[in-house]
Amino acid sequence: MKIALFVYEGFTALDIVGPYEVLASLPNADVVFVGEQRGPVTAHTQRLTLNADAAIDEVPEADVLVVPGGPGQRDLMADGPLHDWIRQIDTGSKWTTSVCTGSLILAATGLLKGRTATSHWLALEELRRYDVTPTLERVVFQDKYVTAAGVSSGIDMALALTAKIAGDATAQTIQLMIEYDPQPPFDAGSPTKAPAEIVENLRDRSRFLLEPKA
Amino acid sequence: MKIALFVYEGFTALDIVGPYEVLASLPNADVVFVGEQRGPVTAHTQRLTLNADAAIDEVPEADVLVVPGGPGQRDLMADGPLHDWIRQIDTGSKWTTSVCTGSLILAATGLLKGRTATSHWLALEELRRYDVTPTLERVVFQDKYVTAAGVSSGIDMALALTAKIAGDATAQTIQLMIEYDPQPPFDAGSPTKAPAEIVENLRDRSRFLLEPKA
Repeated sequence: MKIALFVYEGFTALDIVGPYEVLASLPNADVVFVGEQRGPVTAHTQRLTLNADAAIDEVPEADVLVVPGGPGQRDLMADGPLHDWIRQIDTGSKWTTSVCTGSLILAATGLLKGRTATSHWLALEELRRYDVTPTLERVVFQDKYVTAAGVSSGIDMALALTAKIAGDATAQTIQLMIEYDPQPPFDAGSPTKAPAEIVENLRDRSRFLLEPKA
Repeated sequence: MKIALFVYEGFTALDIVGPYEVLASLPNADVVFVGEQRGPVTAHTQRLTLNADAAIDEVPEADVLVVPGGPGQRDLMADGPLHDWIRQIDTGSKWTTSVCTGSLILAATGLLKGRTATSHWLALEELRRYDVTPTLERVVFQDKYVTAAGVSSGIDMALALTAKIAGDATAQTIQLMIEYDPQPPFDAGSPTKAPAEIVENLRDRSRFLLEPKA
């Protein structure tokens, strides 16, 4: 099972490493990090560099595609070779997925048109520009399209996807292997749960991140 | 605040990328991935390569050290330059931390001697070899030593540590930014919760991973 994990300058590392850690343990997983070109790709903090082992033109098909989010997403919204590649992968994929603002990239390719999807809570309303109905759910399955909410939600998405691909026992085994028994010290991981002041503060500080660049 | 994230051949990517994603958002965070040498370091799946931007001899001190786990841990148990470096960092650190079997490395350096610590549930009993008392808790604070359980627990650890370093509001803000509102599809992330058959099966399959190589 070929699993293409897309990476780009300014991606958010946990968006893709969460799903990677789960999906790489699928039986017969053939996981590859794919960039627009081969070579080092730097996350949005400028402190983590991960290697793209293949370029998009070297990966003509995949069973599963994962598109992560991150501030760099804003540079990938214009139609062109990357969008063509995503649409090409999608023609043969069993699952086309995203984490965080990766759903905005999928939406911009047209693949989510008329569907319901999620994204980082700060970016959710942006989906409407592409005729996509936003929902604050953490993981959204719509036929073969799976979108996950912000950053850490990719772990939940990948486990749910693993259950669909390989059954509940495999998903539970991987969950146990990565000891995913979350015990966050606060109940602040969603805008519906965090203190209102913190939600508003973050919304104000992050406004610039939502202005499309392309 | 200097934060040294140690990486090595055969590390488990999520062990270190979880804490990285949280700690890199600390105010004034100066995060660096450190390897025994500079350059590419490959995770245990052989499918993810991350760059070490500094070698251990280029990083003489740090406020926070994070040591991840992974199958490659078994090659790092013998005393030598790496253990010397960890002890050197520890002399000036505010927090010396580990995720997963990273605690076995810390234990082997002698730093956890006489303390209580956690690790990946499969490796927990190994701590006793180093005069460390194992506990199945997810995050264990003992003075400045913080150990976290398997793989994904590094996220919980880093948020709890963030609260100690920068206060609850900062930790909650980061938790909201990474939308850490976990909703695992199963309650199978701990050996006390997963179906017994799955626990035993994984224990059998993983036995070879626990044989020390050095």
